[in-house]
Amino acid sequence: MFAPVIEPPYYAVIFSSHRTPDDNNYGATAIRMEELASTMPGYLGVESARGEDGFGITVSYWKDEASIRNWKAQLEHRGAQERGKREWYTRYINRIAKVERAYSGPAGRM
Amino acid sequence: MFAPVIEPPYYAVIFSSHRTPDDNNYGATAIRMEELASTMPGYLGVESARGEDGFGITVSYWKDEASIRNWKAQLEHRGAQERGKREWYTRYINRIAKVERAYSGPAGRM
Repeated sequence: MFAPVIEPPYYAVIFSSHRTPDDNNYGATAIRMEELASTMPGYLGVESARGEDGFGITVSYWKDEASIRNWKAQLEHRGAQERGKREWYTRYINRIAKVERAYSGPAGRM
Repeated sequence: MFAPVIEPPYYAVIFSSHRTPDDNNYGATAIRMEELASTMPGYLGVESARGEDGFGITVSYWKDEASIRNWKAQLEHRGAQERGKREWYTRYINRIAKVERAYSGPAGRM
């Protein structure tokens, strides 16, 4: 689902990934990580989509770079990152970006 | 699929959308727009995923803001944008962001 449309500037972590075929507890962990992220300082929301080909994009939104570093270092999240590298992803790219402009539609713009 | 991992800084256009149920020529137009975008100056790549719930994320990557403005104003693309508002999307959010850092895995980092 959509993350809230808030006034820039803020930060986006664009995580693109291709999943391995087996679940290996991925689904439950993804739900848990979303819950956990939402309790972190500076968290602004998350959007996620994955197609049947296994390619997916998750974008999480954060107040600033310090919030992103803090989330990356969170202990339970670090465990999930390690499992991701070993078991869940054939490949991933992570990009940290500063959102400068945003608008929504079709009914009106922010 | 993955866009090339290149050295930041560059720009990302994060387009989140929820599709209407009918195709209405969306599929063919999406393929055509991806082809057309790839011929534009400053185009660096695109990544796209949509789940069965109709929610999708397309991130296109560009050299700079001028490339993004130029693509937004492209005539055939403007036609597609108008159809998108009328027929293809129940809602969308578009965010323009400057990519500051990027890394990939699991096998080595850029």
